[in-house]
Amino acid sequence: MTQPEEIISSASNPLVKTLKSLERKKGRSETGLFLAEGARLIGQGLANGWQADALLVAASMADRPHLAGLIKDARSAGARVVLAADKLMSRITHKDNAQSVVAAFRQRHLSLDALPQQSGGLYLALYEVRDPGNLGTILRTADCAGISGVILVGTCCDPYSFEAVRASMGSIFDMPFASASFDRFNAWRKGLGLSMSAASVNGTARHDRTDFTTGSVILMGNEQSGLPAEAEAACDQLCLIPMRGGADSLNLAQATAIMTYEAWRQRDFK
Amino acid sequence: MTQPEEIISSASNPLVKTLKSLERKKGRSETGLFLAEGARLIGQGLANGWQADALLVAASMADRPHLAGLIKDARSAGARVVLAADKLMSRITHKDNAQSVVAAFRQRHLSLDALPQQSGGLYLALYEVRDPGNLGTILRTADCAGISGVILVGTCCDPYSFEAVRASMGSIFDMPFASASFDRFNAWRKGLGLSMSAASVNGTARHDRTDFTTGSVILMGNEQSGLPAEAEAACDQLCLIPMRGGADSLNLAQATAIMTYEAWRQRDFK
Repeated sequence: MTQPEEIISSASNPLVKTLKSLERKKGRSETGLFLAEGARLIGQGLANGWQADALLVAASMADRPHLAGLIKDARSAGARVVLAADKLMSRITHKDNAQSVVAAFRQRHLSLDALPQQSGGLYLALYEVRDPGNLGTILRTADCAGISGVILVGTCCDPYSFEAVRASMGSIFDMPFASASFDRFNAWRKGLGLSMSAASVNGTARHDRTDFTTGSVILMGNEQSGLPAEAEAACDQLCLIPMRGGADSLNLAQATAIMTYEAWRQRDFK
Repeated sequence: MTQPEEIISSASNPLVKTLKSLERKKGRSETGLFLAEGARLIGQGLANGWQADALLVAASMADRPHLAGLIKDARSAGARVVLAADKLMSRITHKDNAQSVVAAFRQRHLSLDALPQQSGGLYLALYEVRDPGNLGTILRTADCAGISGVILVGTCCDPYSFEAVRASMGSIFDMPFASASFDRFNAWRKGLGLSMSAASVNGTARHDRTDFTTGSVILMGNEQSGLPAEAEAACDQLCLIPMRGGADSLNLAQATAIMTYEAWRQRDFK
């Protein structure tokens, strides 16, 4: 280590309290921060230029090469690095997935205009997605599926909740996303000349017979209630993913994977 | 009600203890039972002819029409129906999803030969899937995607765990599945003349350029380690789902949705 380390061992330490507070929406809103756990995830955040305010490392592990490298990178990026007694780490990180390092990153809130603006692009809009695990999984899938940007429409769950960040497997740092009301989102996509297709039980065209080769937004509804009639009416097309009789329905993340990969397939995965 | 009801209020009642024991693998193995919560799920089980040994209903709710109908159906099917004090129900059902009815169903363990035998069919094999939520989600997707049968290869998680049953959204009662060693499974699929294609990071053919129009098994690997070399070597084709650079990988359930829907699409969803 090139400089003396701060070492903390008390659960009442202000930094520990701040990190603990990030488990709840209130704490995240008040601080503008969110929690990332584990060297791999934190490394992705730093590599993508996200601002880490603080890094907390288990004291017994700080000399391990992968953590020493992470500490160095975090310091270079201006983060405060603190070592913590191991038993303190286990109180901060999630029980089912104890980690030797956690970081508080600063949230980003992009406007629609800050998304990559590609008139021929493929975008994904999620209407009032409510489950953070679904949202994280979908960000991960969108990242794989060549999506230009994700729009969180209306009142969605918090993309910076721990469950969403974890399920995204790092795509939270990689997949640009913006929040907007339906009306603002709809005006924006029209301005870019993007056609809008929703997956809906009211769809008539099969999803694989719907054309996604020009600039498009795929719109997916809420887990429970799907899309309201106004949102469906604003679409250029409603499409339907075929499902065998007897089967009930796909879950939101599964349906989104099928839609995005079909759209990307039509573009020959380019 | 046509007959006097048994009403229990003690957590030490043997039936309550049995139902509680089904949360753990040990309890499920010893009894051969599994737990289903909620009227909708239980109704699906009964409708599909699965044997319910016992139905426990919140006493305050038993007169509601949808529960009265369920009670009648369960009794006709030979189940023991018991009313329970409401506070006892909340101790048995899962906290995040309190239900007014739970049932213990008898597990089914199909052999490979008890699966629908369709030489032109589309099958899904999961190699050592470990996460019950993944397994349940995949059963649900397979059910939608026209899969003839699912094979759990090697040491998989328990499809009758509560998480798997819940995530399946009823497909546990609908989608035939069997467990087998890799060698037995491989011999079985060869006997049926099914070609075997695995999704793998070692794949060279794009998944949408892999032919699934004749009898096929789609083989998916373990969440962490994918497929062992021997299993890949036994495949007729290894295929690759395209992923944009930067993106890490799809999760197992997402990748399975993409594979199964691509295969079914090639069959024109028939």
